[in-house]
Amino acid sequence: MDDDTLTAVLQRAADRRRRFNDRLAAYFDSLTDGANGAGGALETPAFSRFTARALDLVRELSLRGGKRLRVVLLYEAAALVTDEPVAGLDEAAISIELLHTHGLVHDDIIDDTPARRGGPSTYYAYLREFPDRPDTALALAILAGDLAAFLSVRVLLNSGLPPALALAMASLHADVGATTITGQLLDLERDSHPEPSTDLLHAVTEYKSTRYSVLAPLRLGLLAAGADPSEHDGELRRYATALGIANQIHDDWLDLFGDAETLGKSPGSDIRSGRRSYAVRALLAAADESERKLLGAALGDSDGDADTLDRIRGIARAHGIDQSLRAEAERHAREAAALAATWRGRWRPDAVSLFALLPTWTVARDR
Amino acid sequence: MDDDTLTAVLQRAADRRRRFNDRLAAYFDSLTDGANGAGGALETPAFSRFTARALDLVRELSLRGGKRLRVVLLYEAAALVTDEPVAGLDEAAISIELLHTHGLVHDDIIDDTPARRGGPSTYYAYLREFPDRPDTALALAILAGDLAAFLSVRVLLNSGLPPALALAMASLHADVGATTITGQLLDLERDSHPEPSTDLLHAVTEYKSTRYSVLAPLRLGLLAAGADPSEHDGELRRYATALGIANQIHDDWLDLFGDAETLGKSPGSDIRSGRRSYAVRALLAAADESERKLLGAALGDSDGDADTLDRIRGIARAHGIDQSLRAEAERHAREAAALAATWRGRWRPDAVSLFALLPTWTVARDR
Repeated sequence: MDDDTLTAVLQRAADRRRRFNDRLAAYFDSLTDGANGAGGALETPAFSRFTARALDLVRELSLRGGKRLRVVLLYEAAALVTDEPVAGLDEAAISIELLHTHGLVHDDIIDDTPARRGGPSTYYAYLREFPDRPDTALALAILAGDLAAFLSVRVLLNSGLPPALALAMASLHADVGATTITGQLLDLERDSHPEPSTDLLHAVTEYKSTRYSVLAPLRLGLLAAGADPSEHDGELRRYATALGIANQIHDDWLDLFGDAETLGKSPGSDIRSGRRSYAVRALLAAADESERKLLGAALGDSDGDADTLDRIRGIARAHGIDQSLRAEAERHAREAAALAATWRGRWRPDAVSLFALLPTWTVARDR
Repeated sequence: MDDDTLTAVLQRAADRRRRFNDRLAAYFDSLTDGANGAGGALETPAFSRFTARALDLVRELSLRGGKRLRVVLLYEAAALVTDEPVAGLDEAAISIELLHTHGLVHDDIIDDTPARRGGPSTYYAYLREFPDRPDTALALAILAGDLAAFLSVRVLLNSGLPPALALAMASLHADVGATTITGQLLDLERDSHPEPSTDLLHAVTEYKSTRYSVLAPLRLGLLAAGADPSEHDGELRRYATALGIANQIHDDWLDLFGDAETLGKSPGSDIRSGRRSYAVRALLAAADESERKLLGAALGDSDGDADTLDRIRGIARAHGIDQSLRAEAERHAREAAALAATWRGRWRPDAVSLFALLPTWTVARDR
């Protein structure tokens, strides 16, 4: 695979991203202006400032969306089957992104995260608006997240697709919504283990992100394009699991070693929230006694400063964790890429190329 | 309408309630034991204690459900059309009750409510399990509520009904889910008004409870039975609005004047949380200067004691608010009953009787 192919594939992904962002903005317009958009107008009392503000915050966070890996995977899954326009992909993409927004809003309450995607988290936006009423801010943030969840199902149900198809897609979506919550519960469960195993970390990744961020877009894209994803279940799952782990290890690497500008939030958030990320697990496994003491004090200390983070980065580099995490992410990315390469001949070549190139690109981004 | 009719109608409602509770228990069994129940097994990692506990708490709270007004309305709406068994009603009933559970779990975080339906709120159950980690308890409660929300949509999508019908019912459900969140936002907005108007209170009632507790069951029941609810939209809305307001005024009356045993929680919670209920609004409108001072101090004081509540009850009684609230609830109940009476001849008489009797019974319960 040469550089021209990579350039073409990334260009294609960027086009998908840009077109999707326009559609997402139009969807939010249709919710409030009563136009016949993807979802249909949402009936809300005209006088309610709180409702309008919650919708605004859900909109702002959704539109600030970064690399839109889910969206690219969804459209490309349909492109495996056909290069004709496929009905329902826009709604499915909006649905998955709103599910993600739902997760971010509630996660940022759970982790007490101030910044997200280069702006304030929804919780902190409300805390700023109600400086003397933290309970009200918490309540509004919970409800804004809930609203995103119901909107995410609603847009798929109102897609105007043939009923059997709309039902199959919505059913898959509701299932993956419940799975994602299971993953968030697992995430908390992991963080109460002093030193979780890699298997537990893989399970968290699988339930908390892979299922809705990779597997669901693949399945929804194929379904919308008229293919039956259950006929390819095993290989779709293997691809999704490998890409999901690669992506998560890379995210965890970025959280420890990345910079604020690239991340859209301060690095070190996993340390400060005590999250047992792949990077934190590797640190705990490699550290000597005095390093473990420093780590133990820093894990879960929400006031941890840049100095502490620098010291922890130094420890990680001294143990080769910087390199070993990157190698591990690349190994899983190569596994996914190799699997996608076997789709040549069966599925459309330009989409297969994208699935084969995306994993390696994913673990190289933002470095 | 004689006493025998009332007895027969209440017996019928009690039977529906009992049968539904069995089905709800079987549904939760099917989620975990992999049997082919209404919803289909939920894929969760076998080792996860947090997932199992969240499902348990959602189950316990759902099964402790009180009068099941929503369930009775749903089955009786189908009985307006036919006395044959109607497919999909069980799933629709479970769906609506899970939506209610979702609302209760998140509401009890928002209002910091310790007890619900004669047991601990989900939030407080977690606070007791994690006495030193209130953040974890909060996180788990948010996620348990989220889980209930996704399960509520999922059960309707997996009902096995003909796709067009399943889609119509699920679409109605997702719409009403979003509407309910709007209602909860309005609820908070109302409480930041010093003295909200009755119109604002009616709007909160409409969005926060009537739509999903009365109107949605009516529509879903008719849909499942093969009728088109949009043909009766105006009168269904009028019935729902009148019954919803009657029910809410009665609930607010009970919260001020009821006793702990009947309520399943301590009375006075609206006062302690500063909620501008119908009762609180009436108190604020009637109170003289010194009474307003006492009220002002008690509203939102979460440590308010039984003595304070007794004094406020005394003030309310002195201004005739006990009587006037009951009269107001009864007026709306009569309006709903009169509307249902016009359905005679068009719809099946035993179900019409129930719709005509239910409002008056509703505002007389637990007194």
